[in-house]
Amino acid sequence: MSQSWLDAIKWNADGLVPVVAQEATTGKVLTLAWANREALAATAQEGRAVYWSRSRQQLWRKGEESGYVQRVQDIRLDCDSDAVLLIVEQVGGIACHTGRERCFYQRLQGDRWVDSEPVLKRPDAIYRK
Amino acid sequence: MSQSWLDAIKWNADGLVPVVAQEATTGKVLTLAWANREALAATAQEGRAVYWSRSRQQLWRKGEESGYVQRVQDIRLDCDSDAVLLIVEQVGGIACHTGRERCFYQRLQGDRWVDSEPVLKRPDAIYRK
Repeated sequence: MSQSWLDAIKWNADGLVPVVAQEATTGKVLTLAWANREALAATAQEGRAVYWSRSRQQLWRKGEESGYVQRVQDIRLDCDSDAVLLIVEQVGGIACHTGRERCFYQRLQGDRWVDSEPVLKRPDAIYRK
Repeated sequence: MSQSWLDAIKWNADGLVPVVAQEATTGKVLTLAWANREALAATAQEGRAVYWSRSRQQLWRKGEESGYVQRVQDIRLDCDSDAVLLIVEQVGGIACHTGRERCFYQRLQGDRWVDSEPVLKRPDAIYRK
């Protein structure tokens, strides 16, 4: 497969692009992560979300440990070619490492952030120690 | 209003945070833009999306020229406190400067990006020259 579609992306100074994942069925925005060229190529090839972990500085196959894979249905790019949107099926219904459905669970109420979504599964039941 | 909620955000080295805007009614992800502290404070205070334009290096009140304002219903922060999600009403139904409903209109088909959403209004009919 030609990789010219990867050349069309405006990678930032670190060679990364922000990637938003949206759940196909519920429409909920689950996560914002980052991908480098290798990660996005793997996402397209494998049909599952593969990111670049900035903290670990390595490829991160979402769900590789937890099983909560994001199966990719659609890959979209914005008008400036510097942001990607994945439409995904979130296997297991948990996208966040805190055991919540998604990462965007802090909601601004007045002048403070309030955790507004329940923990569905304890993180230590998801991730190996 | 206390601004301690702004201190909770992990701003990047440029003092910015990525901001995803999702349309409240349709659920569509419209845009990914960036905000600095001043922009996000204005967003909360004014109830409309205010971003930081990286190209123009100035505050950008979305819709200030086009009228296509994003009225903010909900402001959310992710688990790492380094990405923001706005739930918005997109006034006029056009979020993208190209005259499309939203910016994520390029869709990966095989190995190329295909423009997959119609131009609803010509850009030169939206923006003053």
